[in-house]
Amino acid sequence: MLDWLDILQPNESPSEKGEPLYCQIRNRFKDAIELGRLPAQTKLPTNRELAALLRVDRSTVSRAYAELIEAGLIDSHVGRGTYVKEQKSPTVEHYQKNLKNPSGGIDWTANFSRASQMTSALLSREPVFTDSNIAAEQMISFAGGIPTEEFYPHEQFEKILSDLVKAGRAVDMFSYSPAIGHPHLIAQVQKHLAQQGVHASDDEILIVSGSQQGISLVCDTLLDAGDTVVLEEPSYFWAICNFQARQARCHTVPLVDGGMDMALFERALQQKQVKLVYTMPNFQNPTGASMSLDCRNQIIKLCNQYQVPILEDNFVGDLRYEGQSLPPMRALPGGRELVVHQGTFSKALCPGLRLGWLVGPAPLMERIRLAKRTLDLSTSSIAQIVLAEYLEKGLYKEHLERVRLIYKSRRDAMIGALQKYIGHQFFAGAPQLTWSVPEGGLFLWARLPDGFSSRELLRFAQEQGVRFSVGDLFFCEKGGSQFLRLCFIQQNEKTIEEGVHRLAQALSHYFDAVTVRRAKSFEGAVLRHAENILI
Amino acid sequence: MLDWLDILQPNESPSEKGEPLYCQIRNRFKDAIELGRLPAQTKLPTNRELAALLRVDRSTVSRAYAELIEAGLIDSHVGRGTYVKEQKSPTVEHYQKNLKNPSGGIDWTANFSRASQMTSALLSREPVFTDSNIAAEQMISFAGGIPTEEFYPHEQFEKILSDLVKAGRAVDMFSYSPAIGHPHLIAQVQKHLAQQGVHASDDEILIVSGSQQGISLVCDTLLDAGDTVVLEEPSYFWAICNFQARQARCHTVPLVDGGMDMALFERALQQKQVKLVYTMPNFQNPTGASMSLDCRNQIIKLCNQYQVPILEDNFVGDLRYEGQSLPPMRALPGGRELVVHQGTFSKALCPGLRLGWLVGPAPLMERIRLAKRTLDLSTSSIAQIVLAEYLEKGLYKEHLERVRLIYKSRRDAMIGALQKYIGHQFFAGAPQLTWSVPEGGLFLWARLPDGFSSRELLRFAQEQGVRFSVGDLFFCEKGGSQFLRLCFIQQNEKTIEEGVHRLAQALSHYFDAVTVRRAKSFEGAVLRHAENILI
Repeated sequence: MLDWLDILQPNESPSEKGEPLYCQIRNRFKDAIELGRLPAQTKLPTNRELAALLRVDRSTVSRAYAELIEAGLIDSHVGRGTYVKEQKSPTVEHYQKNLKNPSGGIDWTANFSRASQMTSALLSREPVFTDSNIAAEQMISFAGGIPTEEFYPHEQFEKILSDLVKAGRAVDMFSYSPAIGHPHLIAQVQKHLAQQGVHASDDEILIVSGSQQGISLVCDTLLDAGDTVVLEEPSYFWAICNFQARQARCHTVPLVDGGMDMALFERALQQKQVKLVYTMPNFQNPTGASMSLDCRNQIIKLCNQYQVPILEDNFVGDLRYEGQSLPPMRALPGGRELVVHQGTFSKALCPGLRLGWLVGPAPLMERIRLAKRTLDLSTSSIAQIVLAEYLEKGLYKEHLERVRLIYKSRRDAMIGALQKYIGHQFFAGAPQLTWSVPEGGLFLWARLPDGFSSRELLRFAQEQGVRFSVGDLFFCEKGGSQFLRLCFIQQNEKTIEEGVHRLAQALSHYFDAVTVRRAKSFEGAVLRHAENILI
Repeated sequence: MLDWLDILQPNESPSEKGEPLYCQIRNRFKDAIELGRLPAQTKLPTNRELAALLRVDRSTVSRAYAELIEAGLIDSHVGRGTYVKEQKSPTVEHYQKNLKNPSGGIDWTANFSRASQMTSALLSREPVFTDSNIAAEQMISFAGGIPTEEFYPHEQFEKILSDLVKAGRAVDMFSYSPAIGHPHLIAQVQKHLAQQGVHASDDEILIVSGSQQGISLVCDTLLDAGDTVVLEEPSYFWAICNFQARQARCHTVPLVDGGMDMALFERALQQKQVKLVYTMPNFQNPTGASMSLDCRNQIIKLCNQYQVPILEDNFVGDLRYEGQSLPPMRALPGGRELVVHQGTFSKALCPGLRLGWLVGPAPLMERIRLAKRTLDLSTSSIAQIVLAEYLEKGLYKEHLERVRLIYKSRRDAMIGALQKYIGHQFFAGAPQLTWSVPEGGLFLWARLPDGFSSRELLRFAQEQGVRFSVGDLFFCEKGGSQFLRLCFIQQNEKTIEEGVHRLAQALSHYFDAVTVRRAKSFEGAVLRHAENILI
């Protein structure tokens, strides 16, 4: 009989002070098993025996054992007892082989956190762009999502930098920025927001190092593992990564005309304790869809009722080509108390600045600021100062007017080309491809018939020299395999037309191949049927 | 009898696909309780009953119940049964009151994640600098930890910016940087590291947005909640925040002469499954201590044996004033496979750049890069390009030579002043204050006699017009209350002398006050004793 008191060393160590008893017991077993001191098949004391031995409540032992079972360290069999489980962990095997062996190397696979494993799994879903006959420089890619350099206002940035240097303001540029953000940029962003109806006081606003960081900070502040986030389906890939890496449960609500399906949205709030709603009301990534005013108001009303904060990600709202601007949710009645509004100029202006902002209720922003201090203390000053000057001079307004015309023209070129080259292509009576017509933003969202796969299409497309983003990446679970996302802002009209032409050819080849496959399969079925009859 | 099937709705929903059964059961109960559908004192079915009803294994129900107990949602009493617990959560109370109430506002306190609560608790330990008779501009603060602007190479940065602009390279500055870092800066950092004996190939290096982010990324990649980190005691405040915010267990090892106490270090590795060792081998924050070569080698040897990665934070190694440089741990035998080396120029050069680097084993760096993509995609380009140019011109070397002399002189001024004003002050036979003499870095670490408190001293100090950092901030748990951290790089020699003079006066007043307090207490004891005799 093992000496359990010796193995478990029940005297509380200083570092465990305040830790619940069942945690301490669980940890002692965990350490002993992982360090190889309790080999596989070792029989553990029963709940009652251990409780008596350690002089703790039986439920304390039960909890400890239950967690050890969950962690795959022990097994419990009714009538037989509880046993140490075979440890397949390479760490333990490796450790047991290498104990006292000074030769180097760590089995990293065994060391990665669950967050890292999750992120790796998600990113491995991105299709690998395999080698193609087409040379890289001739490949036309609609898979992007950021503006190309052609419209970066470099001359203006250069002039701003020169002027700052001449005015002896280089010092400012290399100092720590206040954690909340450079005052000059804060003031400019407050002005920019005011034009949209969002009034941000100093304690409601925070400059962040880009949209990614904004989402991270909101998650850090509100989400524990297992908490539920409600989001649109499909949604922004990197937001999904962020939520899943921290083991939040993603509850998706399908998009319909005008926004999220409100019946399903309300049901989600009723059935679960939702900690956060994530939405992109303008020119959503990946669909380009926008949320109607009605839907915005309904969501705010329901979230108020059920006490759920909303992260409104307005990453590209400025790139509107037609139709009416709608107020941000934060500016609507009831919005101020529970909406965190995120914005950035990365898509409309220049991604290299890595700047964005969060505007939200003061008590929440206070905590988000703390999270930012722990994360990177503050955001680069140079970029903030340059951007502030740029905004102050009214240069952004001019820039927007210019790029809106250009991007609109490119959007129209893509739609025109789709109509011209693909509009007449059908398969079994259904169009080979249908597509959205967004009022702004960066993307068209296109759809193959049911049962067809954009990943399969991609292989044909690469052979033709065109690429796009496969739709299933934007779905949290299964789904979306028949969709593609096409970015229309990165090439000029001529190249867009050529790219769509190649896509049309790829579609033809894809559908031809499917036809052949089905014919063969039918043929095979007929033959087998014939065999059955003959036999 | 409640209809449990109706309450639990056991049919698996699509979002739960792949989730373990016990998680699904736990979540259904969690939702039902938090949404007020199962009021306090509702009796739950026994393990056996529920297992039979749901047709699952009894251990599955046990696990679910155990987690619900842990979450404070249910209570289990031997012989009596399992009951829903009274929910004191403001969220639930608030929710129950406000269900269907459209009036606004969220109870944010109830919504913050455990990470946010932890960070907030840690940061609330920072002393509030209360109002003092001394005007702000006359306050001398030794509480800092970053270089002041007086030595920022602004003229040189200005010239670099001008030249970049004239050469038409502003475009580069506003593009997305490759996620790994700007190639020019990567090359310069590789050169810088090579001089220290660290050879970093392209797949071993990553540019990060400052040391904070470096620590965050390593934690994201390696640590799950409950994992153990071994670190020095005392250690870097923001590192402690980072570990605790993600619920890692901090196992501290006291510093002794030459490094960590190796016996205690080894015991930690033996007794626990340690996921990470965090160390600052050069001019540690807060003590200024450096780790001997022997200690560095021993740690590597033990970590190799026990398969534990090391994060070596070399945040200020360049600021050496005397003595010999020691090789980074990554450069020592066995170091390359398991040491992640972090560096930055923030302290030696200029904090506003917000730039640092991580160098580590390729398989680990690959995962850290993924974590960075999810976090902020990439680090600001302008700062990287300016820094790369600065390094390439050899300007850093000149800068270092200059500031080393100046900072050494300031260190000596502080030590001289301590000796002059405090060296002769004693209390009950012990020196009122003792202090370290670091070979480099930013900080002196000073110590009051046992039983005395730097927080109490701080109040006297503020009255005299001097501040410092209180030592207990740098300890994970209780401890350190008799220490103070003094930064010597931020003021010139004259101001440092004046500041120490004020500190000496504060010490006198503090010890005088203690003497009076003890006399009164003694007097009181004598009186009470006398009363007892008389009665």
